[in-house]
Amino acid sequence: MDSIQPEVPLLETERIDDLLSHNLRIIQSDEVFSFSMDAVLLARFASLPPRGRVLDLCTGNGVIPILLTTRTNASIEGVEIQPRLTGMARRSVELNGLEDRVMIHEGDLREFHQIAGYGVYDAITVNPPYMPLNGSDLKLNRHQAMARHELGCTLEEVIQACVRLVRTGGKVAMVHKPQRLADIFSLMRQYRLEPKIVRFVHPRASLEANMVLIEAIRDGKPEVRLKPPLIVYNEDNRYTPEIQDIYFGTKEGLS
Amino acid sequence: MDSIQPEVPLLETERIDDLLSHNLRIIQSDEVFSFSMDAVLLARFASLPPRGRVLDLCTGNGVIPILLTTRTNASIEGVEIQPRLTGMARRSVELNGLEDRVMIHEGDLREFHQIAGYGVYDAITVNPPYMPLNGSDLKLNRHQAMARHELGCTLEEVIQACVRLVRTGGKVAMVHKPQRLADIFSLMRQYRLEPKIVRFVHPRASLEANMVLIEAIRDGKPEVRLKPPLIVYNEDNRYTPEIQDIYFGTKEGLS
Repeated sequence: MDSIQPEVPLLETERIDDLLSHNLRIIQSDEVFSFSMDAVLLARFASLPPRGRVLDLCTGNGVIPILLTTRTNASIEGVEIQPRLTGMARRSVELNGLEDRVMIHEGDLREFHQIAGYGVYDAITVNPPYMPLNGSDLKLNRHQAMARHELGCTLEEVIQACVRLVRTGGKVAMVHKPQRLADIFSLMRQYRLEPKIVRFVHPRASLEANMVLIEAIRDGKPEVRLKPPLIVYNEDNRYTPEIQDIYFGTKEGLS
Repeated sequence: MDSIQPEVPLLETERIDDLLSHNLRIIQSDEVFSFSMDAVLLARFASLPPRGRVLDLCTGNGVIPILLTTRTNASIEGVEIQPRLTGMARRSVELNGLEDRVMIHEGDLREFHQIAGYGVYDAITVNPPYMPLNGSDLKLNRHQAMARHELGCTLEEVIQACVRLVRTGGKVAMVHKPQRLADIFSLMRQYRLEPKIVRFVHPRASLEANMVLIEAIRDGKPEVRLKPPLIVYNEDNRYTPEIQDIYFGTKEGLS
């Protein structure tokens, strides 16, 4: 009785983790879905309108919509195709008392414009499955496989969905693997989503990037700004001050 | 009489500069053409075959072909459209006694395949004009303007020339501005030049990149490796060890 937060039911293998900032909590499961650093960095990288409508595609257990509530007064929605995950996400929203701020939709991003309409969002975030379909990783269960591989949607379908759903001049922030950079840039250009801000994440300053954050503007003017590298670990194996601030601090966005 | 290097005639405003490595020298002129760090970094970034044929497009005063002689036994050619610059480049080749290693062609890269043939080079380097034509910088003279603006050739024409001239599986290394990244990637993809290795150059670790080095493979498999950031200045305003090594050292290539 030391908390006013409502309790929510947990299913098998689920646990409640702290999100480390703003006293937020999230339901996770190693067997079903647990968020990674990629989602946390994206939630801090994205430019957000102070109000309006923000959408998170491939929302998984809702970690990004929940984190975004700390950075904007916009109404925030998430779309997830797997019922098992929308269930987790909705209970996490409830766990944090955010039912008035965050709505989780169960649906296919390829068809979501039929429900939401065209060009209705001011900003979209997306942490899509990274790996093209190639038959590997067959030991993953279906929940894990859909989050990591392009089973439910390809990169091209994700970008098409973003363009349909965001307004002209609206922003789309994506996290992905640098290996796919040429695919991402050429598909974005093809669908008139112009890459504007790019930031690479390197595990260490001396290592290749293993993550890329990209913000694009629908029908934007072609000109990329390439931000300073985001380095995760110092030479002494500790988080860099910037990563510490993102995980534990209260600043509003990535530089 | 303390040198066996032949003397070459200098035209008005020209001077001879040291290239700082391998005792190479180069003819420059602030009014006509002088090389920048971009060329030096590209000459170290490019993957080179141990022998075979290497071509440098937009070669200017020949700084890249001359530097490349220290890294490969390949025969090296340069193409430059401005007669004033091919003259400088040829005299610099002579100044270094490299007439057997480096050949400078005067010509238009858009037509060079008619002389050289299709797919005959193992590797191509190019430091093209960076700025799209937009009527600015009218105080530049014509030599300077052609080196900086897309007067003589557009980015698309440069990429088309590379694809015509390099063999299947051959490598094209380019230095450019990060602002043009989406243009570069989508044009390369369009002409089947697949970006494979990308490295950004930041003036300082905390600043946005102001240069990008890209290596692409003709008909390569899509997969980008994003190298560690190349930082020019330390916090104490001195060159970083890596830049010092590139300018003054003897190592063979960028990491």
